[in-house]
Amino acid sequence: MEHTKEQSYQLKATELLRADAAKIEQLIKVQMDHLTMPQCPLYEEVLDTQMFGLSREIDFAVKLGLIDREEGKLLIDTLEKKLSLLHEAYTNK
Amino acid sequence: MEHTKEQSYQLKATELLRADAAKIEQLIKVQMDHLTMPQCPLYEEVLDTQMFGLSREIDFAVKLGLIDREEGKLLIDTLEKKLSLLHEAYTNK
Repeated sequence: MEHTKEQSYQLKATELLRADAAKIEQLIKVQMDHLTMPQCPLYEEVLDTQMFGLSREIDFAVKLGLIDREEGKLLIDTLEKKLSLLHEAYTNK
Repeated sequence: MEHTKEQSYQLKATELLRADAAKIEQLIKVQMDHLTMPQCPLYEEVLDTQMFGLSREIDFAVKLGLIDREEGKLLIDTLEKKLSLLHEAYTNK
């Protein structure tokens, strides 16, 4: 199946953003898995920095018209929800 | 003059990245202009955050093939040089 160059930019942009989101999700998962270790700190700064980086990439892609604003928002919102579960779990541990 | 869709993404990407770089340059300029005021702090964290954001956008654009790696590097290097002049000026004030 042939894609136009336009579609190919859009597909590649979505792919890159999903990959970056997956990396953050993995970071959250690792933090969750270490929850039972009393001395493990929550790397909030690392997660915040990565979230900021991803949100800048998404804004850039939205401005370029490579992804929908809604699609970008969904990526961020999904991660925000997981992050908030992580914070909750740390608060209650 | 007609541009292909591919060129139009490339032009727009370059335009957006230059605009973001110009914003940081302006931030640096404002800091430079306030250098003589003894109580003015250096907003290093703000500048660092903005530089990180821009570098993520540039990496993303390079990966998509929207700008050359060299062009992106030049944008960052130019700002880094101005930042380093600012730091020097603060150290010697």
